[in-house]
Amino acid sequence: MAGSQGDKYYDVFLRYRLWLSTKDGIGILGEGRLALLREIDKTGSLKAAADNLNISYRKAWGNIKHAEEMLGFILVEKQRGGKLGGKSQLTDEARNLLSAYDELKDDFELAIKDITRKFFKKINKT
Amino acid sequence: MAGSQGDKYYDVFLRYRLWLSTKDGIGILGEGRLALLREIDKTGSLKAAADNLNISYRKAWGNIKHAEEMLGFILVEKQRGGKLGGKSQLTDEARNLLSAYDELKDDFELAIKDITRKFFKKINKT
Repeated sequence: MAGSQGDKYYDVFLRYRLWLSTKDGIGILGEGRLALLREIDKTGSLKAAADNLNISYRKAWGNIKHAEEMLGFILVEKQRGGKLGGKSQLTDEARNLLSAYDELKDDFELAIKDITRKFFKKINKT
Repeated sequence: MAGSQGDKYYDVFLRYRLWLSTKDGIGILGEGRLALLREIDKTGSLKAAADNLNISYRKAWGNIKHAEEMLGFILVEKQRGGKLGGKSQLTDEARNLLSAYDELKDDFELAIKDITRKFFKKINKT
């Protein structure tokens, strides 16, 4: 839909945000924490992932611990000592969560496209 | 999906938020402003609507003016003078927008139900 005000024209878009929460509305995982998991997967390091997202190591680790507690499974394994000391990697459950979320976003984009088209058709009918 | 941590069990829900924005991400209408329009429709008064939502008259009016400018049509008509002086009422366009939004939410709830079921099925498969 294009809104107009004098010579100015605005395009209007329907936006959405998705996240996982508890029944009481406590946030578990949203775009921020998912981005953190993706960075850990890419860099193999919680420290590097936190740096890339401009958050503190402490905050990054706290967010992951909180999500793990709420979900009931481990997302990130820290390797201690040996050749891999200091490295972090995602668990299979976390990788599975990320790929399921990507598919969910695809499904969502498809659904929202239809719903949005119907919505704007309706509000332009006045 | 139920997460577990020791004796505690958490149910995990997929949540969403919807809003209209410009291409550049400037918010036009979200749940707050839609609630304001619904209150104006119910009370016939911008002042009463703002009071009911615990926001100032000035803020309420500013939000509506901003949305009107972005959408390119008038949402609220103020009656001046006469028997209806001081009353506010929604335009047909605003009423149409509200009913289209309600239908959009219904469509959305249906779509998200399917998408959520698929998502949780997938992440419980690990």
